[in-house]
Amino acid sequence: MRWEVLGNAAGTIDPADRGLQFGDGLFETIAVREGRPRFMDRHLERLGQGCARLGIRAEGIRSAEAAVSGMIGAERTGTAKIIVTRGTGPRGYRPAGSATPTLVVGFTPESPPDPPAARGMALMLCRTRVGRNAALAGLKTLNRLEQVMARMEWNEPDVFEGLMRDEQGLLICGTMSNLFLVRQGRLMTPALARCGVRGIMRGVVLEEARRGGIDVQEADCPVEFLDDAGEVFLTNALIGLRPAVRIGERRYPIGPVTRAVAARLAALGVGEARL
Amino acid sequence: MRWEVLGNAAGTIDPADRGLQFGDGLFETIAVREGRPRFMDRHLERLGQGCARLGIRAEGIRSAEAAVSGMIGAERTGTAKIIVTRGTGPRGYRPAGSATPTLVVGFTPESPPDPPAARGMALMLCRTRVGRNAALAGLKTLNRLEQVMARMEWNEPDVFEGLMRDEQGLLICGTMSNLFLVRQGRLMTPALARCGVRGIMRGVVLEEARRGGIDVQEADCPVEFLDDAGEVFLTNALIGLRPAVRIGERRYPIGPVTRAVAARLAALGVGEARL
Repeated sequence: MRWEVLGNAAGTIDPADRGLQFGDGLFETIAVREGRPRFMDRHLERLGQGCARLGIRAEGIRSAEAAVSGMIGAERTGTAKIIVTRGTGPRGYRPAGSATPTLVVGFTPESPPDPPAARGMALMLCRTRVGRNAALAGLKTLNRLEQVMARMEWNEPDVFEGLMRDEQGLLICGTMSNLFLVRQGRLMTPALARCGVRGIMRGVVLEEARRGGIDVQEADCPVEFLDDAGEVFLTNALIGLRPAVRIGERRYPIGPVTRAVAARLAALGVGEARL
Repeated sequence: MRWEVLGNAAGTIDPADRGLQFGDGLFETIAVREGRPRFMDRHLERLGQGCARLGIRAEGIRSAEAAVSGMIGAERTGTAKIIVTRGTGPRGYRPAGSATPTLVVGFTPESPPDPPAARGMALMLCRTRVGRNAALAGLKTLNRLEQVMARMEWNEPDVFEGLMRDEQGLLICGTMSNLFLVRQGRLMTPALARCGVRGIMRGVVLEEARRGGIDVQEADCPVEFLDDAGEVFLTNALIGLRPAVRIGERRYPIGPVTRAVAARLAALGVGEARL
């Protein structure tokens, strides 16, 4: 991945930056398709909301859009990333009121490998939990050690993603994705009031399902829901929607609700209409 | 604070460093007294144990000791910091097995201001909670946004520290310190099996209390323990031991157990024997 640090020609980070010191910041990972960052407005909106919740000055983040476009250049597809930190400061957790946020943008022409969607993906259930903290719930902060630890649990190349529970055993998310499941005919995704990242593609799926008349609900999802779920799929900004066909030994079909949501996403340019 | 990045003459951090990207690393904050880093062996031991738990290669961390000594130079007192990250890597949470850890050392001749110990300190109870996660409990990781958010809750200069509870309401720690309280004649400190940082000075106090025949216990501490506590004090590597004389409206004396622990620490060169 190539990186630029806005306002710093050397393209490097000061060790005193609070992003390094404390993970005091946020990031966005953005799919580049047809030469353009997909859902850029949604990503910038979420980044601004995150800055507001953390008390980080957000005036400068719009300039990330032009910086990302510049990095994409003539590439058609790839992955872009925007990182914003609270900037540098004196020692200690208390931020200096005058701190100028650090803005970093990155781009790689690589996209995540595209497994044959018709076969779907295998998932596993991670031991590492997601800690509950309402103050940070929903945000894509730079505090991602839980996801790193969970991702270290498997090396099997055929396992695409690991599902994570919170400390009370509720399903929350994948290490890098949001979870949807169909249960008793209803599409569900874990409520993220206590922890988890409110993914951009998760939001798109919720909107599209409602527009399409699909019964959809954000709710607490005990892990047992995986046993009686009829369909399971994952979403994130890069992969769009991906059906799961196996979690541990349990197998799932790619069912009608998954197909209906996938068709609506395809109409927005995300993925293929036919799974 | 002055910083050095070992093996990087420019002294800067690569934006691809996982310390910035995910908070994928650990740190130590070390008091420099009489021209030497205090309890350096304990700090390096904890750092090594943390690396082992996170799966970060720890061979290089001993070199931080010489680097810190070099930065101290002729200064007598101050604060040193060691940061270790998993190093740079490709995009995604999964670490590359070949990653070389990044080692950063910092030093400032400033120490935290020394309030008149005899007056003790005022504390507050923070709204921001500490999330439970057994996988990271006890470690001083670079994921410190909870502490940052808690520290932003107050600006009153006479409030020295904020106490934090976990999501279930148990007392865990201060934003930058460990908590001790005396209840029914027994010295107690919150158990840190689910969250919190296992402070170096906390460990020293536990050892010294046991050596001194003081009844001491690590235990779950509901917030109500503050109501019937007879004495309260905080510890960290920089401040040593500091008695609390007020939390909200509740006042506490500087009592005999606090004084006994302080005297034992003073014999080790930490703080003054007489509070």
